[in-house]
Amino acid sequence: MNFRMHLYILAKVMLIEGILMLIPTVCALFYGETDKLIIYLSCSAVSALLGLVISKIKPKNTNIYLKDGCVVTAESWLLLSLIGCVPFLITGEIPRFTNAVFETVSGFTTTGSSILTDVEALSHASLIWRSLTHWIGGMGVLVFLLAVVPMSGGSNMNLLIAESPGPSVGKLRPKVRSTAKALYLIYLGLTLLEILVLVIAGMPVFDSLCSAFGTAGTGGFGIRNDSFASYAPHIQWIVAVFMIVFGVNFNFYYLILARQPGKAFRMEEIRGYLLVILAAVAVICVNTFSITGELWSTLRNSVFQVATIITTTGFASTDFDTWPTLSKLILVSLMFIGACAGSTGGGIKISRFQIRLKTLTREIDRYLHPRTVKKIQMDGKPLDAEVIRSVTVYFMAFLLLFSASVAIVSIEGYDLVTSFTSVAATINNIGPGLAMVGPTQNFAFLSDLSKWVLIVDMLAGRLELFPLIIFLYPGTYRNSYQNKLPRIIR
Amino acid sequence: MNFRMHLYILAKVMLIEGILMLIPTVCALFYGETDKLIIYLSCSAVSALLGLVISKIKPKNTNIYLKDGCVVTAESWLLLSLIGCVPFLITGEIPRFTNAVFETVSGFTTTGSSILTDVEALSHASLIWRSLTHWIGGMGVLVFLLAVVPMSGGSNMNLLIAESPGPSVGKLRPKVRSTAKALYLIYLGLTLLEILVLVIAGMPVFDSLCSAFGTAGTGGFGIRNDSFASYAPHIQWIVAVFMIVFGVNFNFYYLILARQPGKAFRMEEIRGYLLVILAAVAVICVNTFSITGELWSTLRNSVFQVATIITTTGFASTDFDTWPTLSKLILVSLMFIGACAGSTGGGIKISRFQIRLKTLTREIDRYLHPRTVKKIQMDGKPLDAEVIRSVTVYFMAFLLLFSASVAIVSIEGYDLVTSFTSVAATINNIGPGLAMVGPTQNFAFLSDLSKWVLIVDMLAGRLELFPLIIFLYPGTYRNSYQNKLPRIIR
Repeated sequence: MNFRMHLYILAKVMLIEGILMLIPTVCALFYGETDKLIIYLSCSAVSALLGLVISKIKPKNTNIYLKDGCVVTAESWLLLSLIGCVPFLITGEIPRFTNAVFETVSGFTTTGSSILTDVEALSHASLIWRSLTHWIGGMGVLVFLLAVVPMSGGSNMNLLIAESPGPSVGKLRPKVRSTAKALYLIYLGLTLLEILVLVIAGMPVFDSLCSAFGTAGTGGFGIRNDSFASYAPHIQWIVAVFMIVFGVNFNFYYLILARQPGKAFRMEEIRGYLLVILAAVAVICVNTFSITGELWSTLRNSVFQVATIITTTGFASTDFDTWPTLSKLILVSLMFIGACAGSTGGGIKISRFQIRLKTLTREIDRYLHPRTVKKIQMDGKPLDAEVIRSVTVYFMAFLLLFSASVAIVSIEGYDLVTSFTSVAATINNIGPGLAMVGPTQNFAFLSDLSKWVLIVDMLAGRLELFPLIIFLYPGTYRNSYQNKLPRIIR
Repeated sequence: MNFRMHLYILAKVMLIEGILMLIPTVCALFYGETDKLIIYLSCSAVSALLGLVISKIKPKNTNIYLKDGCVVTAESWLLLSLIGCVPFLITGEIPRFTNAVFETVSGFTTTGSSILTDVEALSHASLIWRSLTHWIGGMGVLVFLLAVVPMSGGSNMNLLIAESPGPSVGKLRPKVRSTAKALYLIYLGLTLLEILVLVIAGMPVFDSLCSAFGTAGTGGFGIRNDSFASYAPHIQWIVAVFMIVFGVNFNFYYLILARQPGKAFRMEEIRGYLLVILAAVAVICVNTFSITGELWSTLRNSVFQVATIITTTGFASTDFDTWPTLSKLILVSLMFIGACAGSTGGGIKISRFQIRLKTLTREIDRYLHPRTVKKIQMDGKPLDAEVIRSVTVYFMAFLLLFSASVAIVSIEGYDLVTSFTSVAATINNIGPGLAMVGPTQNFAFLSDLSKWVLIVDMLAGRLELFPLIIFLYPGTYRNSYQNKLPRIIR
């Protein structure tokens, strides 16, 4: 373990977080929230200065192996959340430590599950900070670091692997640093576009900022108590479209920008993603049509809810907990399916399901033609056996963590649907679940034990299990273990 | 495809079923149910004679490849169920066709889900036929066929593979025929032992027969409306122990009889099975103790319910739908875990989970020691890569069928728990679920569409998916496909 390098990276994370806290500070200034201004400014200053000082101790050895990459990623996310919750505690807007950590982790992991019973009571500064955590967590703070801090050879790749979502990480460009830059530029560009469109559509600037941050990071914190239900229909349409846009694998946009549209539109994951959305919208439309009997509002609510759940954003335009069973079931399934790999969305990811499906059909094929062995392909290229195996293992690890979490939460004795969907909504980074954690409810009533379990689930979901497993596994810190880990096991 | 051989095997199945129908005939005679006597006798005669006549056309080529094995297994089970439901229809005790098929398939697949609202209204003949279907389905009619009908070379092995539960089939003895005989002798011996113990314990002989058939096959049809709740506590204990006994891999008993107790007790699956039972009983005991506050009845109900669900039997000694959420959740988890491979129980099977867990830990190990490659072992022997891969694929196929089934059932609009557990209880061959299909309820209220979906699920669960997939896959019947399939893909 290269702990000096860990410290260096963590210091940089503190510096970045300190700088980002200037945004709520400016917001407090603008809205004349003087007490909040002082608090956010101090937090910003302390974090940035501390980060700046510590990062002056530059380690000689800047190598980060994959094992370090995983551990430092877990450490960074914990640090990020612990610093991020301080303003909530000091302003007294979220006075309890567990709740403040829950809300902040929910923010950074782009979950959007809230313990706030009255969101509208929050100051503008805290509202924008809360939404900003989604934006920071969406693309990942380490990916941002990679874009701005030079690092040696393979090190930056190991950080990129550890933090990016999806079963395999494709480098967009030969250099990791330029890949990270490209990702952030696309991310920033799309976010600015959404803000612009929302402002033009008549949404207040503050609401546009918060909504765009929540959409871009596929987070889901609303700034109104009814989430999106009271916004105008055309605003809901805009946000629905942007949610779908941010659930797309960013390689797609890169390929489009690199003038390779043919290659972009041949991406199987994108096709699968759009197909699932279409199918889900169609079934839900038919299934919920009788509620209002109005075609357009039914279509809008169907598209909005499918988009918000499959991209794991978690906004709500209607109380889908009152929908018929089939529609609720489809939404719960979409929670697990999730968005594309390489997007800001959570869940298990479309491509992991596609790989599993391909494995299944190949197996049936093998059964009927035992002498021909076909390779599993994605986008026309044969898939690495490591990737296939790691996808298999991912499902099992996910199942174990999921079952254990539901068991612990169910000790509280709430109904099965509440216990099940509270975990499903957090581990997949969605936001709202069903029943007592439905879209018009919140997570405040849960015990501290349950909240901490869900905090772990949110982090495990965002980091896609392995970095957290490696971080918590005692063997990782034994010297006898290999330092050099060339393989990707996501 | 060797269709002549299919016909020959199906004829033998009809013959066996005809002979077995003599048991309810004798029962009708004993209880003076004259109208039932005539019906069961005619059904028995027609089935046996038809089988006898058709089986006279002996095919020259008696080879059965694995593909044929799967298809003929699926055909046999369909035929078995279609003939088996005739007496219910003619006696008018289950007048509707869908219901009669549902009840019979539920019987043969050892599920035990019932569409009867008043079991006690049934004649003795029909009650014992209903319970007997569990016993026939438990070990499998084709395994019985193997024990009595000589077949050429590898053919009988392919039938054994297609019908036996578990990820891999171990031959107990060098010859398949003697393996099948050994399995049936152990099965018969244990069943007779249970009948004897129950009669000595004071249970009426008729009840003992039905209960033993239901326990041995891990079926679960009760002959009282409250299942086992009104039987004396010591009877409940006896049945609980026997349920656990029939959920054990039969290789264990074979090894004991072959005087290899050391090898028997080293079987990892048995250890895992007992460990899961102990853990589940402990948690449920603590969780449900406050309901009655009585230690012994809490312990008894916990053991009984854990045994009935993990072995996928489905008797009930109490209405566990009223239990606290954690206990219900554990029962639902046990439904999926299931009993040991090579037992009469259903579910996904302990060994499949053990193989998946070993794959997961090996993967983490690989991550930390990339240069040492360990083989996954079971009972000290390295596992075949085919078996590991097929287990992986099994989980995916299971997930797909499960999700599709829940989606169709949920169209009816009953609550999520009912939709979810009605499929869980049938695909895993349990019997009762929760909520509207809980232990004090039945499956009568469901629509025909849902019932047919659950019928498919019951068959798919009992035959462990692949034989049914191969049977339904159009490519299977194309000549271009290979006939010779040497591999096992369970």
